[in-house]
Amino acid sequence: MTAEIISVGTELLLGQILNSDAQYLARELSALGYNLFYQTTVGDNMDRLAKCLETALERSDAVLLSGGLGPTEDDMTKDAVAKVFGLEMELHEASEKEIKRFFASRNYEMTPNNMRQAMFPKGSIVLPNARGTAPGCIVEQNGKAAIVLPGPPHELIDMFEKHAREYLTKRSDSKIVSRVLRVFGMGESSVEHRVRDLMDGANPTLAPYASVGEVTLRLTAKVGVGEAAHTLLDPLAEEVVKRLGDLVYTTDNEKLEELAVRLLKENGKTLALAESCTGGLVAEKITDVPGASDVLLEGVVAYSNAAKIRRLGVSEATLEQFGAVSAQTAKEMAEGAKLGSGADFGIGITGIAGPGGGTDEKPVGLVYAALAGGGETFVKELRLGGERVRVRALSALNALDLLRRRLSGLPLE
Amino acid sequence: MTAEIISVGTELLLGQILNSDAQYLARELSALGYNLFYQTTVGDNMDRLAKCLETALERSDAVLLSGGLGPTEDDMTKDAVAKVFGLEMELHEASEKEIKRFFASRNYEMTPNNMRQAMFPKGSIVLPNARGTAPGCIVEQNGKAAIVLPGPPHELIDMFEKHAREYLTKRSDSKIVSRVLRVFGMGESSVEHRVRDLMDGANPTLAPYASVGEVTLRLTAKVGVGEAAHTLLDPLAEEVVKRLGDLVYTTDNEKLEELAVRLLKENGKTLALAESCTGGLVAEKITDVPGASDVLLEGVVAYSNAAKIRRLGVSEATLEQFGAVSAQTAKEMAEGAKLGSGADFGIGITGIAGPGGGTDEKPVGLVYAALAGGGETFVKELRLGGERVRVRALSALNALDLLRRRLSGLPLE
Repeated sequence: MTAEIISVGTELLLGQILNSDAQYLARELSALGYNLFYQTTVGDNMDRLAKCLETALERSDAVLLSGGLGPTEDDMTKDAVAKVFGLEMELHEASEKEIKRFFASRNYEMTPNNMRQAMFPKGSIVLPNARGTAPGCIVEQNGKAAIVLPGPPHELIDMFEKHAREYLTKRSDSKIVSRVLRVFGMGESSVEHRVRDLMDGANPTLAPYASVGEVTLRLTAKVGVGEAAHTLLDPLAEEVVKRLGDLVYTTDNEKLEELAVRLLKENGKTLALAESCTGGLVAEKITDVPGASDVLLEGVVAYSNAAKIRRLGVSEATLEQFGAVSAQTAKEMAEGAKLGSGADFGIGITGIAGPGGGTDEKPVGLVYAALAGGGETFVKELRLGGERVRVRALSALNALDLLRRRLSGLPLE
Repeated sequence: MTAEIISVGTELLLGQILNSDAQYLARELSALGYNLFYQTTVGDNMDRLAKCLETALERSDAVLLSGGLGPTEDDMTKDAVAKVFGLEMELHEASEKEIKRFFASRNYEMTPNNMRQAMFPKGSIVLPNARGTAPGCIVEQNGKAAIVLPGPPHELIDMFEKHAREYLTKRSDSKIVSRVLRVFGMGESSVEHRVRDLMDGANPTLAPYASVGEVTLRLTAKVGVGEAAHTLLDPLAEEVVKRLGDLVYTTDNEKLEELAVRLLKENGKTLALAESCTGGLVAEKITDVPGASDVLLEGVVAYSNAAKIRRLGVSEATLEQFGAVSAQTAKEMAEGAKLGSGADFGIGITGIAGPGGGTDEKPVGLVYAALAGGGETFVKELRLGGERVRVRALSALNALDLLRRRLSGLPLE
């Protein structure tokens, strides 16, 4: 079965809002086993909207429309559906009552326009809106379906989950199950080079995506409703891990910081941070994981030499002899964070994130990440390209990876 | 002039990533005075992609394509453009050299596939990619243009700003100029209520958008190329500021942390941070602003009571009597950060970000943000709704707003 998405709204066309509805619907439809080939965004214009819907119904079994259900003349999605299917609009009495009740309960003034929200193409299955005043609807004809949902994301998601998903599940003949492996420490093209032949499979499929500092490998299997997908996915995941080894840090879509927090918890260990160029980014990542307070004792953002000396016990001699951006300073920062807090592990990061501050000897992108605890203090020298935000992000990920490796008993280099 | 956007990529179709490129391009094209009627997303499939491009070129003057420029066989956007325009692909030697240089400089392994990125439809204007290995291109024919950009947002934005914008500006017959006012401390519907009548204008227009904790007001004027927009925009901006007063923290689209760093610099003042529930988020925001090292002396992430006592000098008696989440602890954290570092200002934040840790007396979302320096220490009690990420974000923004208000001589409550 094929489905496609039409997002309706001038504010989307002009880029005034981000189209998160389309992403949500795409993910859900894909998980229900629908094939997706197109998404279209079109404004509040009857001719263009009707034309898009016609084209979509020609090539897809189900068309999901979002937006344009409001009370104003600009909101015309249901009218466009009625026009394309050749149906009249009719009043839906239960919706009329519900809208009147909604306005009365909130003491809002009701305008005649609000009644437009109780009008539907004749024969519609009306979908109640628990989060707003605009119900949605499903219209069927000749084996094709148009599913009309509201634009505001919390209304759309609620209506999809309560009403549309069940309808779409019944119509679907298959489902799609995905597993996500994440890789740190190798570029996208090199990762791809190693798994290239595995990407030719039709079911399961393997697809790599690059984000800052990481490569994500998505394994996807399509199976019949009621069938298990793991018999397809497990052997493929094993083969990928065999080829990439411990560069694969998760086969379960865990983020590096989530993994680090989990490993610390499982081992009953604690952590302290000393950050210079990352400016609290590692702390922010770690504390974004619920329950991080069990394992993170403290973090220090020490930009200045004075703070490095006072807060972390870095020696003046080290700073003078080697400079603030040096392996020695990173080491003393990590050890200072560990000792000062009594934590089991200390992370120290110092470097030049740019855009200013670089020299020939110490260019922008030179970063030292150190890990103290669980053995000898280890310092990794990084030479990172790109902008400030990339240098900071990669520095943070490298530090977290050092911790992950030590906690997993893997070599640090 | 009309333009439209085609986003290419199976990962978009499946909802695996959010289409922020389309929003960025839509906003930029709209600002350049282009009329936008359609956006389409299509997968890595030659027939469907070529068909979409044909349709788009029939109805629009400029078609912007993003994605599908990578080194793999799946990346076929340039080939599709060549096919639709009836052109051969040819090697672009400067790009070939640049790609080789890129790989050499990063010590990455180069694969034969990478050379696909130096192939372009014959006669293309090649657009260099400063952030990655895939150059883009512009292909013109019969007054129509296809502009091919890379998919990763940081690459796309950089290439658009350095190359595509100038090209599109030259072709446009009008331009749209926007001014962005940012409002902190009032909900979207209340802001809208106060400026409702100003939103009915056709030129300039006023549109509000809500993001976490903030409301953005976009003022937009459409004028002919060469005409000045400020005569339209300035009076409207003045009227908005008159109505919302000092809740408007910028009329120049500055972020709150950028404003805070700028105000600190202008006043020759320094800052230290003591964060508990925000876990380094304020530090991360501040240090994301280039040059933050001039004003941020240090930051401490102190989750545990021990860290609050040792690192910030919070008294044991205070923690025992009032608890870690209390106005008194926030005050001592802010003052401890200020005193310990010798900074002019200290910020202290303590609270319950959730999902766990709440009690009847101190529920999730209870946060105290304190500012020491420049007068008596001020503590703001916040009762925030929503998820962990929202509580943290709003806590950080509130603390920055306190600093902004004190540095600007405004009342803190």
